[in-house]
Amino acid sequence: MTISIPHPDFSAPRFVAAPDARFVPAPADGVLPEGFFATTNLPTYAKIEGTWRMPREPRMDAALVRDDAGRLWAREGRRVRAGQLVAVGAAEDGSEGILVHVPGASDGAAGGEFKFMSSEVSREKPIDYALMARLLVEERERRGYPVWVAGPALVHSRARADMTWFVRHGFVGAFLAGNAVAVHDIEAAIFGTTLGMTGTGETTSGGHGLHMRAINRVRAAGSIAAAVERGIVTSGIMHALVERGVPFVLCGSIRDDGPLPDVITDMVSAQDAMRAHTTRATMAVLVATALHAIATGNMLPAFVAEPDADDPDALPSLRELPTICVDSAEFVVSKLKDRGTHQAFGVVTNAQDFMHILRLYVERELAARGAEVGA
Amino acid sequence: MTISIPHPDFSAPRFVAAPDARFVPAPADGVLPEGFFATTNLPTYAKIEGTWRMPREPRMDAALVRDDAGRLWAREGRRVRAGQLVAVGAAEDGSEGILVHVPGASDGAAGGEFKFMSSEVSREKPIDYALMARLLVEERERRGYPVWVAGPALVHSRARADMTWFVRHGFVGAFLAGNAVAVHDIEAAIFGTTLGMTGTGETTSGGHGLHMRAINRVRAAGSIAAAVERGIVTSGIMHALVERGVPFVLCGSIRDDGPLPDVITDMVSAQDAMRAHTTRATMAVLVATALHAIATGNMLPAFVAEPDADDPDALPSLRELPTICVDSAEFVVSKLKDRGTHQAFGVVTNAQDFMHILRLYVERELAARGAEVGA
Amino acid sequence: MTISIPHPDFSAPRFVAAPDARFVPAPADGVLPEGFFATTNLPTYAKIEGTWRMPREPRMDAALVRDDAGRLWAREGRRVRAGQLVAVGAAEDGSEGILVHVPGASDGAAGGEFKFMSSEVSREKPIDYALMARLLVEERERRGYPVWVAGPALVHSRARADMTWFVRHGFVGAFLAGNAVAVHDIEAAIFGTTLGMTGTGETTSGGHGLHMRAINRVRAAGSIAAAVERGIVTSGIMHALVERGVPFVLCGSIRDDGPLPDVITDMVSAQDAMRAHTTRATMAVLVATALHAIATGNMLPAFVAEPDADDPDALPSLRELPTICVDSAEFVVSKLKDRGTHQAFGVVTNAQDFMHILRLYVERELAARGAEVGA
Amino acid sequence: MTISIPHPDFSAPRFVAAPDARFVPAPADGVLPEGFFATTNLPTYAKIEGTWRMPREPRMDAALVRDDAGRLWAREGRRVRAGQLVAVGAAEDGSEGILVHVPGASDGAAGGEFKFMSSEVSREKPIDYALMARLLVEERERRGYPVWVAGPALVHSRARADMTWFVRHGFVGAFLAGNAVAVHDIEAAIFGTTLGMTGTGETTSGGHGLHMRAINRVRAAGSIAAAVERGIVTSGIMHALVERGVPFVLCGSIRDDGPLPDVITDMVSAQDAMRAHTTRATMAVLVATALHAIATGNMLPAFVAEPDADDPDALPSLRELPTICVDSAEFVVSKLKDRGTHQAFGVVTNAQDFMHILRLYVERELAARGAEVGA
Repeated sequence: MTISIPHPDFSAPRFVAAPDARFVPAPADGVLPEGFFATTNLPTYAKIEGTWRMPREPRMDAALVRDDAGRLWAREGRRVRAGQLVAVGAAEDGSEGILVHVPGASDGAAGGEFKFMSSEVSREKPIDYALMARLLVEERERRGYPVWVAGPALVHSRARADMTWFVRHGFVGAFLAGNAVAVHDIEAAIFGTTLGMTGTGETTSGGHGLHMRAINRVRAAGSIAAAVERGIVTSGIMHALVERGVPFVLCGSIRDDGPLPDVITDMVSAQDAMRAHTTRATMAVLVATALHAIATGNMLPAFVAEPDADDPDALPSLRELPTICVDSAEFVVSKLKDRGTHQAFGVVTNAQDFMHILRLYVERELAARGAEVGA
Repeated sequence: MTISIPHPDFSAPRFVAAPDARFVPAPADGVLPEGFFATTNLPTYAKIEGTWRMPREPRMDAALVRDDAGRLWAREGRRVRAGQLVAVGAAEDGSEGILVHVPGASDGAAGGEFKFMSSEVSREKPIDYALMARLLVEERERRGYPVWVAGPALVHSRARADMTWFVRHGFVGAFLAGNAVAVHDIEAAIFGTTLGMTGTGETTSGGHGLHMRAINRVRAAGSIAAAVERGIVTSGIMHALVERGVPFVLCGSIRDDGPLPDVITDMVSAQDAMRAHTTRATMAVLVATALHAIATGNMLPAFVAEPDADDPDALPSLRELPTICVDSAEFVVSKLKDRGTHQAFGVVTNAQDFMHILRLYVERELAARGAEVGA
Repeated sequence: MTISIPHPDFSAPRFVAAPDARFVPAPADGVLPEGFFATTNLPTYAKIEGTWRMPREPRMDAALVRDDAGRLWAREGRRVRAGQLVAVGAAEDGSEGILVHVPGASDGAAGGEFKFMSSEVSREKPIDYALMARLLVEERERRGYPVWVAGPALVHSRARADMTWFVRHGFVGAFLAGNAVAVHDIEAAIFGTTLGMTGTGETTSGGHGLHMRAINRVRAAGSIAAAVERGIVTSGIMHALVERGVPFVLCGSIRDDGPLPDVITDMVSAQDAMRAHTTRATMAVLVATALHAIATGNMLPAFVAEPDADDPDALPSLRELPTICVDSAEFVVSKLKDRGTHQAFGVVTNAQDFMHILRLYVERELAARGAEVGA
Repeated sequence: MTISIPHPDFSAPRFVAAPDARFVPAPADGVLPEGFFATTNLPTYAKIEGTWRMPREPRMDAALVRDDAGRLWAREGRRVRAGQLVAVGAAEDGSEGILVHVPGASDGAAGGEFKFMSSEVSREKPIDYALMARLLVEERERRGYPVWVAGPALVHSRARADMTWFVRHGFVGAFLAGNAVAVHDIEAAIFGTTLGMTGTGETTSGGHGLHMRAINRVRAAGSIAAAVERGIVTSGIMHALVERGVPFVLCGSIRDDGPLPDVITDMVSAQDAMRAHTTRATMAVLVATALHAIATGNMLPAFVAEPDADDPDALPSLRELPTICVDSAEFVVSKLKDRGTHQAFGVVTNAQDFMHILRLYVERELAARGAEVGA
């Protein structure tokens, strides 16, 4: 089961033509010369007196040191002494006498570059809120159809106010969610709690039944729209959707309490209802929901197709369908990608914080454009 | 291995004295009467004609329905028909004829309350930024000594600017971190990247070696303070600490590159250096670092002791030492608590987002108090 | 917002009666005497010459050292010098002259014990497979009704063979899952892959469509049972359930492909179908499924009620309903508990590994009892 | 910020030469013909009467249906009616009249294949224990130098017995860990607990100080080897390492209690000590430790270099250095890869379960080879 790694073919003209690696003395103990070559953990060769050699004790984040006997070492900067000869150069393709060999790359491509931070989804990557804000503002300007898909964490936390703001100001084409999102939002509207917790996270006496009481009142009213009309529900996401006439789909699930009267309990019908929106989507924002994010990802093409107005039989023009997927774990976004939604770009953070900062950046973007907030 | 659950002793006076449970007809199909009793998954009893009875098909989030034959059922609201008799009442202690029995509670305490959301650390809980901001502003006002402990995620992401802001405006008594935090911060100051990524998360050509080059320049300068003086490092967290004279401790670790000249590589000496600050701490903010958060937690008492100025031999007055622990996973905060740091209150979110919103709330708190931002 | 911590009332008789703390010299530099008192991070008092005093520089995991001037210090063992006086004793309630004060505890309870590892759910806790195996074997012996609830990770990985084993040998009363579990299981039966991956995790050419082809064949057959009869499905979990006549419920969800003909797509009907099993359950095993675990948890009482055979009107006898919840993250189990399923005991691990080791322990338990494997 | 997606150049010879897509009638309502083409979410074209067309309502996991008017639709199988024309074919490169266009691929490569489950690290992927067991057995046979790096979760849980087994039977070349691993292992040897928990996860009275008492006894003895000799430590990992003479390195960290006398507290010296082993490593197993896994990853080349015995100046032969990284979260393995250790193959599971199953498979592999367990 040993997997051998062949050396590059050093008889190739570009390797024969390459110069010797250049060495410069270290200026002080533990200090490398400017421009030192920084090693990786891949097979590495330096040309010395016309011969390609490998360093001893190879490791990444080290320098290449040539000792008096002409031997080559990978050595941490702190261990280098003043005057020792250290390789310099930035090129990893052999053209300056140093070659980093990526096993598996074809010989022609030897020297493919070693990179840090190439995994696509990580909580350690910066989040480009400015870009996302610009996308949302541009969608609103071009009268696009951004589909938002949300999980209950969005309502548990105080992101509810921010989601409501996005609905009220025209950034939501359609809102897809489950029973729980609407239940928690309406519990908050009626009782000021979600699953019995106050907005600062305290549990309340008798709180465990409040979501059931909220459901019951809407069932008594007959629908969410009726509950809004009768003044039972006077704030929040569902209220804003009803007031502004933004279409929403509430899909049932096996864990639903109630459910609310608007919930589509048959999954086949619910998928059909969702498809009416995913086929029109020009952008997708998936927040804090593994189930609905993957459901939507399954339905969503990776692109927006715009028919040619003059020739309906011609191929439509295509553009990428921007998809933002927010979750507190890398897992959901990776899972979404594993199921084929490659265009999703993932944000690993808390839904509450995401919504708050996104709104802040959208407000800034609007201010920078001199655009109205209301729309 | 069967664990029996005894019934409460219904001959106790308070159970004998309790009234029968009250039942009210359901107003419509699938709609419960206002004030319906909401079930839990614990053993539940309703007093009917003087006898305590248990419902059939018990489950949580249901109502208690009494059928024509006098039998009691736990039934989901959607399955209740108009006119069926539904138990009402909020008390779970038997005083209104319904008892929820918490196994293990003493009989006197029978009826201990069932609660949702009682776990202490969860990404689904709201984050009380207003409270944290108030704590920080009050610490500054009373000239407290808030110790900040940070991991590299704080610098990878754009939280660097926010952390710098907190340093510049007097919210940091001491800054404890590892080599990596300072390396990434200084890489950003010199090259505009962290681990070779730009501020928007792009990887750069040759980027994998930039942190090594940043380290090398500071090693050449001799210290971080010297690198600031010579204009090598002109921005960021370390720059602000040096300029403002805020003490910092950089502890080494086995995974360090370099390290930077200021890093204390001996762990015993490093703990001694940290203790000089933890013994003075009046607040702690631990952001995105399992290793240093636990190290600090190990050293930090759960309280602040203020000696009596007039009588140094008297017992000091004590108050809680507020500790904020931020991580993107519940795991780290729970781990901190498992090792005894019970007073930590946990925030499960992304470090970048946390820092940005916290700063925003501190600015609002200052504005509300009419306080200066600079200090 | 300062929260003061009052000192205990040292005029209470038990504190007045307590002896002075006992001090013993350290036997060598950096070595504490046997029986040294180990500190916590809570307020701590030692009685010295009749007066309760607090140590300077308090921290956990330290010793209490009395210096020549009679002052008390919390000091790490490594810093103690030979001959220095170190407090000894195990009691934290003052009875040996040392008191650990748990703020918030009533004075009578002062000295409530400080504990490590008190969080309930953690990947760092040992997993008691022997106990779980005994529970399962006992359930089979007493002809109980263990309800298994499984997510697709169980089939993706090679746990499929182990789950099949549990079905075949009589450890499963009913099997509750979603469309995906059955789809992946049947894809594996027909094509040897799950979501296009082979059993060792390789992706296959054309693999992304194989689950659709599997679904299509079962749809053509009309039902899973028909597909088993016609020899289309010849192995795996669904095959074993059909062959052995173990009832199963496949609940639909919004992300389903297909679905398979047996899937109940209406969520209200699906909950009714599940309830037929949860009301009979005497044990529950929830593996790798947030959605179905919480759905089942919502329906499941915390106890098993056994009616009195002689007197159907009498209160049934009650016992705990053992619930095992397995997930690769602490989050799901904590979430289950947050929604009220307190009796769940959580196992944080990979579903494949869990199933394999559980089977191994059940086999050992059977061997130890001299019981037949087949049943 | 719109990113356009150009269509493939359909004037290319291979597209001109391609046949029309083939359509077959659906055999029944909701049932697709065998061999149906399964869609992806990428731009897809079918050649109809010589013209390449795109389907309406594109989505993945659907079939391509041609209606009576000659229009093309992506349609879920359940919605297809008997007799409707459904595209068949497996090729995605246009050669059978259907093309899946991967944006960004060069035209020559158009039709690059769409794949599921391509993320490298996921808890949903099967774990190839058989392969890992074979690697370990082969390493022992060829007298390789497998370096094991372990975190404390390995000892908290019952994996301690399995790790000891691997040491005793010759599968460990060197053991690298931190103070905590040795402390917990020795606490277990002396007191039967780890951090005060028993082997089944119960907390014990006075347990929080037991690790301090364990440390103190070893400090009194002078070294771990001395504690083994004097019969203070009579079982476990450290005992086995000492008895068998397997070298170990215990690196200090800022969160250490004690530390034990063998711990190298200076990080520069500790890295030097580790390098003595990483430069000899022929395999690496990293279990449950982010800190030490990344430290080791930083030092470890991606390959094993074997010098030519006859010609020490010749290039050595190279082979891959197999690296197994086990953690309960995807995060650590992804992080390891992000820092350049690309050859790591990740196992997302609980350390205890991993060790137990790995041992089981190694025992099976030995039995299959007729090899001795002891070595």
